Amino acid sequence: MINKKDIKNQMIQAVKTVKQTNPMAGSITNSVTINFVANAQLAVGGSAAMVYLPDEGEFLAKAAGATYINTGTFLPIYEETLLRTAKVIRSLGKPWVLDPVAIGIGSLRNQLLQEFKEYKPNIIRGNASEIIALAGQWGLDGGEKVSNTRGVDSTDSVSAAKDAAVALAKWTGGAVAVSGETDLITDGSIIARSSGGSHFMEKITGAGCSLGGVVAIYATATSPFIAALTATAVYNIAGKRAGDKVDGPASFQIQFLDELYKATADDIANNPFELTEV
Amino acid sequence: MINKKDIKNQMIQAVKTVKQTNPMAGSITNSVTINFVANAQLAVGGSAAMVYLPDEGEFLAKAAGATYINTGTFLPIYEETLLRTAKVIRSLGKPWVLDPVAIGIGSLRNQLLQEFKEYKPNIIRGNASEIIALAGQWGLDGGEKVSNTRGVDSTDSVSAAKDAAVALAKWTGGAVAVSGETDLITDGSIIARSSGGSHFMEKITGAGCSLGGVVAIYATATSPFIAALTATAVYNIAGKRAGDKVDGPASFQIQFLDELYKATADDIANNPFELTEV
Amino acid sequence: MINKKDIKNQMIQAVKTVKQTNPMAGSITNSVTINFVANAQLAVGGSAAMVYLPDEGEFLAKAAGATYINTGTFLPIYEETLLRTAKVIRSLGKPWVLDPVAIGIGSLRNQLLQEFKEYKPNIIRGNASEIIALAGQWGLDGGEKVSNTRGVDSTDSVSAAKDAAVALAKWTGGAVAVSGETDLITDGSIIARSSGGSHFMEKITGAGCSLGGVVAIYATATSPFIAALTATAVYNIAGKRAGDKVDGPASFQIQFLDELYKATADDIANNPFELTEV
Repeated sequence: MINKKDIKNQMIQAVKTVKQTNPMAGSITNSVTINFVANAQLAVGGSAAMVYLPDEGEFLAKAAGATYINTGTFLPIYEETLLRTAKVIRSLGKPWVLDPVAIGIGSLRNQLLQEFKEYKPNIIRGNASEIIALAGQWGLDGGEKVSNTRGVDSTDSVSAAKDAAVALAKWTGGAVAVSGETDLITDGSIIARSSGGSHFMEKITGAGCSLGGVVAIYATATSPFIAALTATAVYNIAGKRAGDKVDGPASFQIQFLDELYKATADDIANNPFELTEV
Repeated sequence: MINKKDIKNQMIQAVKTVKQTNPMAGSITNSVTINFVANAQLAVGGSAAMVYLPDEGEFLAKAAGATYINTGTFLPIYEETLLRTAKVIRSLGKPWVLDPVAIGIGSLRNQLLQEFKEYKPNIIRGNASEIIALAGQWGLDGGEKVSNTRGVDSTDSVSAAKDAAVALAKWTGGAVAVSGETDLITDGSIIARSSGGSHFMEKITGAGCSLGGVVAIYATATSPFIAALTATAVYNIAGKRAGDKVDGPASFQIQFLDELYKATADDIANNPFELTEV
Repeated sequence: MINKKDIKNQMIQAVKTVKQTNPMAGSITNSVTINFVANAQLAVGGSAAMVYLPDEGEFLAKAAGATYINTGTFLPIYEETLLRTAKVIRSLGKPWVLDPVAIGIGSLRNQLLQEFKEYKPNIIRGNASEIIALAGQWGLDGGEKVSNTRGVDSTDSVSAAKDAAVALAKWTGGAVAVSGETDLITDGSIIARSSGGSHFMEKITGAGCSLGGVVAIYATATSPFIAALTATAVYNIAGKRAGDKVDGPASFQIQFLDELYKATADDIANNPFELTEV
């Protein structure tokens, strides 16, 4: 039986551990939102480090508590960097977060996303179309081989990605977070639906990317499922609070980062979420 | 005879179409201001996607309604990416915007800017020195082979770039936008002068780059001349409104993005501009 | 004997010269904080230009009044770009600022930081762990070969880096700035300790990087020691003023950039600092 109180206690513990220990997550992430990712990681109490080169990726994989790989923009060197980094992470059994941004665009991105199937990212975060497309590429239930992603946008609803999310979580043995109006987080047997946020999150670039980076921070301190749920919860409470204060997207981003910083462990655990069994 | 009312109606239609259809423009743009470009594109109602690799540029050229190429920072792979992307755009007859940032710096940038002459970008946006230098490099009237650009800054006035802008527009058959205190937009036969903005625009990096990105968003929905004029107008009205509220450049940037988001079709069409024939 | 009044007058002169002449500094810097670096340089009255390619680095080395090299994120092309740029700077006797971010991570970064020993950067800026690690790598007093850096964070106190800073300044004949709660600036014979700032500076990414970029702006107009002290002083006064106004890190960054812009020459020279002889 699912024990909601126990899950909330784990969330509270994760938030407190991060605020007390300032854990570092390493990232290989896109250049569009790289600054937002780092500042969001700092705001929740973590430390950020971003690299491009293969041996630097390996170094961070060893030195950091968790690693975040976001496929938003590719450089030629990524062919070497991403696999070498994933290999080290996997050999050490450390947690890592995959954000399959722009899946479907370009041969290198798709080749590497295919190879990542065997590296089993502990947490996969994406919008609904990305989650469906990744499950499809990996030949899992609920996936579709033809991606409905449009550039970096989703054209599917979160609920349409439920089966794909569950299948991905079962494959990796970790967790999957699908971002949308109501977010879905699953470890393959439990589904959490977290609500809150703001319509402004779609009017700024990087809400999803920075969420992935924050998941990696919490993944240094707790299980994949709790990390994904806690990060989603702090995004929803901070997004809600920020959205209530502003009337434009840039002001929203500023207030949102401030609210990420201010949210307490109790605030985060008490943000509304519902649990069901798969 | 120039019909100002007709032009304003076309501007209103372009703004409304963008707000209703959320069109995507793909970008290959510099890393300094890439986040600002994306957020400005989102603020006016568009969608953003940025890439570096050749096949990804080709993919976006096909998938996006328009493409934005900004030469602010070059990576080695751009030698392949920019030409392959421009070829696809041209073969499909889709609109694209060229922002010849830092023209005069480095052999690869100058080689590619030279090759772009034959790809005839539908809209060229730059400061006065960049427009004069590009016309000079392309051997057109009003150009000067020795660039007066200083890094990314202009040392020429907008009016000094009029002949170069007209010659570039006649060559491409599209439009040219010269940014400065009063902005000049021309399709080679009509000249629009758009005013507004704020002195703070020169105190933040990327006012020009993000304008180029917004031109690409409007170019998905209207003619090159109307796209350039509409984007310039929304920058001038948002810049004016933001500048009136703040006393520092970072606060300006936040308010400016908020005002980009808030500006209505009528606000934009009613921002002051004057029309003359060449 | 140290004449504090004379130093303050030189600071005032440097600030005024920058505000009046809008000098350009070229930068090769990391992609995480590149936008913040540029906006900070603009806020104090300078002009920014960022590049990646070798001949572009050489171009800027010649065209700019000073150059800023920050090793935060490496691309493969940097192997060629950084040395060719440093060679041109050195041959022209122009000032340059080295920010050895992430020293200890990756073979290319460490190889180039080693080679930079002979290029004698006029100003070295870093956190305490970076300064100790660089002195260690260069075999100077006060250094430690095994870096205590953790990603991009310091684990040492500023005072622990005093000997390393003095040794580096003596080696280069320039100045060294160690950032921390109380900042230490030395030319190898005088030590200035500058105070102010805000705890929020550690909660945003790029406070150190952008300080390095601002040091380069002042280095176009004054000596290495005065440039480092002036930049540190404007960071401390702007950080103090911004921190007093806000309760979150993103609001802090906006106010901080605004205060950088507003700080007068007198404000900056009057920010508290203490002078001692080595």
